[in-house]
Amino acid sequence: MRHSAPQYPATAVDGVLRFASIGGLELETGGYLPDVVLGYETWGQLNADASNAVFVAHALTGSTHVARGHTDEPGWWDELVGPGRPVDTNRFYVVAANMIGGCYGSTGPSSLDPQGLPWGSRFPLVTIRDAVRAEARLADRLGIARWHAVLGGSLGGARALEWAATEPDRVQRCAVIAATPASTAEQIAFAQAQIAAIRLDPDFSGGDYYNGNPPLAGLGLARRIAHITYRSEPELEYRFGRSPQEDENPFGAVLPAERGRYAVESYLDHQAGKLAGRFDANTYLVLTEALMGHDVARGRGSLRQALARTTAEFFVAAVESDRLYFPQQSADLAAALPRGTQVHLIRAPIGHDGFLTNVREIAGPLQAAFFA
Amino acid sequence: MRHSAPQYPATAVDGVLRFASIGGLELETGGYLPDVVLGYETWGQLNADASNAVFVAHALTGSTHVARGHTDEPGWWDELVGPGRPVDTNRFYVVAANMIGGCYGSTGPSSLDPQGLPWGSRFPLVTIRDAVRAEARLADRLGIARWHAVLGGSLGGARALEWAATEPDRVQRCAVIAATPASTAEQIAFAQAQIAAIRLDPDFSGGDYYNGNPPLAGLGLARRIAHITYRSEPELEYRFGRSPQEDENPFGAVLPAERGRYAVESYLDHQAGKLAGRFDANTYLVLTEALMGHDVARGRGSLRQALARTTAEFFVAAVESDRLYFPQQSADLAAALPRGTQVHLIRAPIGHDGFLTNVREIAGPLQAAFFA
Repeated sequence: MRHSAPQYPATAVDGVLRFASIGGLELETGGYLPDVVLGYETWGQLNADASNAVFVAHALTGSTHVARGHTDEPGWWDELVGPGRPVDTNRFYVVAANMIGGCYGSTGPSSLDPQGLPWGSRFPLVTIRDAVRAEARLADRLGIARWHAVLGGSLGGARALEWAATEPDRVQRCAVIAATPASTAEQIAFAQAQIAAIRLDPDFSGGDYYNGNPPLAGLGLARRIAHITYRSEPELEYRFGRSPQEDENPFGAVLPAERGRYAVESYLDHQAGKLAGRFDANTYLVLTEALMGHDVARGRGSLRQALARTTAEFFVAAVESDRLYFPQQSADLAAALPRGTQVHLIRAPIGHDGFLTNVREIAGPLQAAFFA
Repeated sequence: MRHSAPQYPATAVDGVLRFASIGGLELETGGYLPDVVLGYETWGQLNADASNAVFVAHALTGSTHVARGHTDEPGWWDELVGPGRPVDTNRFYVVAANMIGGCYGSTGPSSLDPQGLPWGSRFPLVTIRDAVRAEARLADRLGIARWHAVLGGSLGGARALEWAATEPDRVQRCAVIAATPASTAEQIAFAQAQIAAIRLDPDFSGGDYYNGNPPLAGLGLARRIAHITYRSEPELEYRFGRSPQEDENPFGAVLPAERGRYAVESYLDHQAGKLAGRFDANTYLVLTEALMGHDVARGRGSLRQALARTTAEFFVAAVESDRLYFPQQSADLAAALPRGTQVHLIRAPIGHDGFLTNVREIAGPLQAAFFA
């Protein structure tokens, strides 16, 4: 049996970027952002008692465009969210906000300050808790006192978890996918290298590059490093091995700088260029910093004590081949929850990115648990 | 029973850098280097029939200084090589050459060309096979027709393996430690990121920086990336976790660029600075390129066919926690050898660097196999 498509008011067209002014925001490490705007998209319709709202938190370089909607532009979680999908937008009202500091509609380093200049290097440190407080104001404006569920993967999973711990009365269900209770030493280490890459680019200009060339090479290098960690060794070996890129010869030149590329190099060049063409380097820094600072237990005692404040029902999932957010770290989170829970494994050889490419692996259990 | 210390001629002082001119070298991808010099050190004394010579190949950023000698400066394999050590220099004549392209005594990018200018950006691509051919000339000059054994770890393991396949009649025993038969897609990917880091540094100047500031930040970033891959996730977590660096506060500033560091960041800053202070960035590029090109089977059919040409007895070892040179890759090598062999596991949680820090784990079996 299929539901008939609901009629939305003009203000609620599915999957179209809109903007909410949420006022000034005092930040956790002492900064202040006046006149904060959050970009967001919605799908479906909020019901009369506002009990069907679902918040979806994007990952580091993700956007508000979780799913198809008014246009046919693919979303990053189309398999999970949409009419008739596990998170069925014929029944649920889905909201996705661009994280504060972002470059997909929310106030970030490329936004203008009250004097009309891009924030650039003056954009303050924001934490994931700051992001949750900003998103809570968005929820207020949308008339959502309590989320039916909050979902996210990777950085989005960290945000979902912080939502449950920071606003426990507002989160009934929480799905933390391919994420950890706190960023680990290795995650911090890889993140630092990415930040250093951006700062090394002469076009970065200390962060004030908006009147010049953006630091495409530095951002691209950050993405290269990150992308390797998002995939698994077997995935790279299976797809590329030592093959040269078509029509190129890695042994075909006297000078290293002139040789042909290996296929895996060409692939990473492509990934680097693709991200650099769509993303702001300062936002990459700001959100990476937020992720480095992620620790749901910070200032809240032990992990178990920090999680004791949550009231949500949890769904924890990990990608079995993830070598950046190891499944064991998800197991540690699951074990520390007030009522414990099992970890759902996304069976995929691809690595961390399996939370995007193979989410169907857990769609059934997630639907059964939260959206039945 | 201990051997008495042999009396060396003045030209054979243990562990002192010397230089050998080996003439001009045609390179595999078409380049040519005139008047090549190899820096090398030796320990012990070559016996009358030149049957006790052992070649030790260093890793990417290693030097000729394998062991203590005339001075007390520590060597990077002191645990393995020295008087009374598993490779006992009272019995064996140990030779370690700086790889061609290096910055520890051999002709490399910082060397002067025939016009008296540093090679810099004009230094040609060298392969590991080129390195072996250069080292074979050094062996000729030292009067060594055949090595009792060739040993190496990481890039040095690749060189040892190439020695056995390129000069099969000159290698009686070959130890390949924490190395692979060919660089994998992931190793190429991480290497490409390191090369990009160096090239991104504005001080790199396309490779011709010898009259200006060297690209310390770029080389440091390359080392950061590499160093993470040389260690294991549990090692970093155990040592650093999320601890702030002493007297620093990661949440202590409004601006990201001004915040205090995590301990793991400070550690990597230290590693980056240490390497940048002792190593040449162009050499890092050249040797990394050589490693990316490593494939013992290139032009020799299958791996099994390529190894069929070897006559050496093999000793293959891997670090159990290595996540850059996975033990399985050593097992693949061992299985493809003409007579097969087992893989000796270095039991250490540290990761790839275990071939340096925990070599004692395999010193006994290696001594029993090759140096009894």
